[in-house]
Amino acid sequence: MAGKLKGSEILKIAASIRALVRDGVDICNLTVGDFSPEQFRVPGLLADGIRAALERGETNYPPAIGVRPLREAVQRFYARELGLEYPLESIAIASGARPLIYGVYRTLIDPGDKVVYPVPSWNNNHYCTLLQARGVPVRCGPEHRFLPTAEALVSELPGARLVCMNSPLNPTGTAITRDALRGICEAIVAENERRAARGEKPVYLLYDHIYWMLTFGETRHFTPVEVVPEMARYTIFIDGISKAFAATGLRVGWAVGPVDVLMRMTPALGHVGAWAPRPEQLASALLLDDPEGVRAYHREFKPAIRERLDLLHEGVQALKREGLPVDSIPPMGAIYLTVKLAPFGRVTPSGQVLRTNEDVRAYLLERANLGIVPFQAFGYPGDEGWFRMSVGAVGPGDIRRAMPLLGDALRALRPA
Amino acid sequence: MAGKLKGSEILKIAASIRALVRDGVDICNLTVGDFSPEQFRVPGLLADGIRAALERGETNYPPAIGVRPLREAVQRFYARELGLEYPLESIAIASGARPLIYGVYRTLIDPGDKVVYPVPSWNNNHYCTLLQARGVPVRCGPEHRFLPTAEALVSELPGARLVCMNSPLNPTGTAITRDALRGICEAIVAENERRAARGEKPVYLLYDHIYWMLTFGETRHFTPVEVVPEMARYTIFIDGISKAFAATGLRVGWAVGPVDVLMRMTPALGHVGAWAPRPEQLASALLLDDPEGVRAYHREFKPAIRERLDLLHEGVQALKREGLPVDSIPPMGAIYLTVKLAPFGRVTPSGQVLRTNEDVRAYLLERANLGIVPFQAFGYPGDEGWFRMSVGAVGPGDIRRAMPLLGDALRALRPA
Repeated sequence: MAGKLKGSEILKIAASIRALVRDGVDICNLTVGDFSPEQFRVPGLLADGIRAALERGETNYPPAIGVRPLREAVQRFYARELGLEYPLESIAIASGARPLIYGVYRTLIDPGDKVVYPVPSWNNNHYCTLLQARGVPVRCGPEHRFLPTAEALVSELPGARLVCMNSPLNPTGTAITRDALRGICEAIVAENERRAARGEKPVYLLYDHIYWMLTFGETRHFTPVEVVPEMARYTIFIDGISKAFAATGLRVGWAVGPVDVLMRMTPALGHVGAWAPRPEQLASALLLDDPEGVRAYHREFKPAIRERLDLLHEGVQALKREGLPVDSIPPMGAIYLTVKLAPFGRVTPSGQVLRTNEDVRAYLLERANLGIVPFQAFGYPGDEGWFRMSVGAVGPGDIRRAMPLLGDALRALRPA
Repeated sequence: MAGKLKGSEILKIAASIRALVRDGVDICNLTVGDFSPEQFRVPGLLADGIRAALERGETNYPPAIGVRPLREAVQRFYARELGLEYPLESIAIASGARPLIYGVYRTLIDPGDKVVYPVPSWNNNHYCTLLQARGVPVRCGPEHRFLPTAEALVSELPGARLVCMNSPLNPTGTAITRDALRGICEAIVAENERRAARGEKPVYLLYDHIYWMLTFGETRHFTPVEVVPEMARYTIFIDGISKAFAATGLRVGWAVGPVDVLMRMTPALGHVGAWAPRPEQLASALLLDDPEGVRAYHREFKPAIRERLDLLHEGVQALKREGLPVDSIPPMGAIYLTVKLAPFGRVTPSGQVLRTNEDVRAYLLERANLGIVPFQAFGYPGDEGWFRMSVGAVGPGDIRRAMPLLGDALRALRPA
């Protein structure tokens, strides 16, 4: 089992880039779904709260399910910001979103159980391997901005134990519409009504909305429970401070969902030991309980992310207008841009014919010092030239310097 | 599977005590293997290091295996303090010791594999359930201070994939002798030589020595690798800052062992997401790299723990001299005392005959406001009256006030 489980491809690409950086190469690193402190700092409120908690000696064990002040703060936060009312028993804390995703899989899935997930998406393939689930990836193409529709999912619902969704979506930076989400939720509710009549177990929806606070322009974030209230019985939300507050290294995440599922998740998470540190939990509670503090942070943070995404998008669009084989999807949320780079069949200056996404990735890293991740890393099959660009670790200047290099690298290719 | 997995009994007892405390009852809480900030603070070095890391913006993702400065600090620390030389690839960081124990189980164990562990011990039963291992508990009685001997283990080695040991031992506060450890290690090496000749997989030793810095008086801590060097190929050490630096809530642990095992552990731990927070990792590196800082902290910390254990031990011995059915084992290490409270067959003032450890525990909590944990919570079978007393959350004054109440409660019992 351990031998079958691969580390995240993204982390492997990131490691190869770190090696180049150590060798002094100036890489525009758009690979990791993370932030660099040179570009983005956590809210002062959060850092101050950790310092204050340390000062008070808040360094002993948190309860396995998380400290009560944070669970209560999440409860208030969801009521205030998302209109979702949950009892305290519906809320569990862990060391980031990952352990909670793992916890949902572990709680609901027995070996061989069917898990349906759209691709591209993040790591569902790995969680299926980890839990010996029968993963059923559903390919979602550019025609729906790589997001699922009810039509795409409905035929796979029978027999499924879990459907996994993420919006805004890693890797695409696109967000689901209210109509599409309602269609999916209505299909799940209908499926579960049929199962209830037959005395069968329901299908659950893991709804990872870790980027929900990061939407841009007209884009709005929707939740399954707001569009179809009956979904409260079947939806487990995954969330945390990692992305919305540039705090990936502080390890605080939360899950919110039906009490029975959440209470069954806790023992396994307790033994696995994926507990969030106590000072960070207490500081996160203070942050979530400060609506004006959150808004003030996002007033600077979100436009700064958007600026970077727009620079990339506009840069790619300029290359497209020039006639180069590239495209991009306007950014809607998260910290990602979907880019198409499809110079397939063309020949590099060193004589290599570019045939696959991996060929293009390696060529652009070597020739343009540009680090990007092909959609294959997110389970999306086929060499169509789709890539994720992530902006948390680069500045506007980095992007302005990188785009001409990308153009030059593409122009340097010649026909076969 | 999720339904079969029980939360830790200790945590459940602790929760019942928290409820009493909330109701205003003044409990002498000797139940949880934790520290209270009123009694024990983390090293100033550690808190300062976290603050400095936050100041520098060290709030982004650590590598899944842990930040390099901490892995290197652990490498130097083990060389310096334990005489153990390991390559960097042998060292992995996680959010405490628990995820690493889970990681060892997960990496080495397939469903049905045999895991041998002495009882009493901490949570091996739960890890066996979690990984669907065939757990084989080996009862170790008071005649060897509840620690295993080669004689006790050797008959169970054939067919075993993993042996789990812990010294100083939770729950007993006793430590293994060099001779006993050598005997066990020689048996493991001999078993593995036989297996190698037959082309079979070796048996590994999970050696949890999270309390190794906390030994008292003449007691010395020994490692498998120092007593039998061939054990380097088969030993995975589990360790961390939680107990040695009263930092259970800061979530930093490490495993050290054979490169092949450690490298196979990392992907699963990465997906489970049990990552230690980055500021705490960097601060732990500074602490481990400061031998005088560590020693200065322990010069105050260890005598303070020992004082509490001695007060309990002397108090119980005084009751024993009075003729009450109690006993205790002199403290050797960790933060625990083994106590025997065996007033079985005697009758409480309210007319209940005490028959089981659980009867005694509940009676003493209600009558003497004393919170203790029966050895059954550590997989040790039988109602022989053995209990763990843990001192991290109580002061000398609490113990001085509690002992007369314990005496009174025992004296209030009458013959059946």
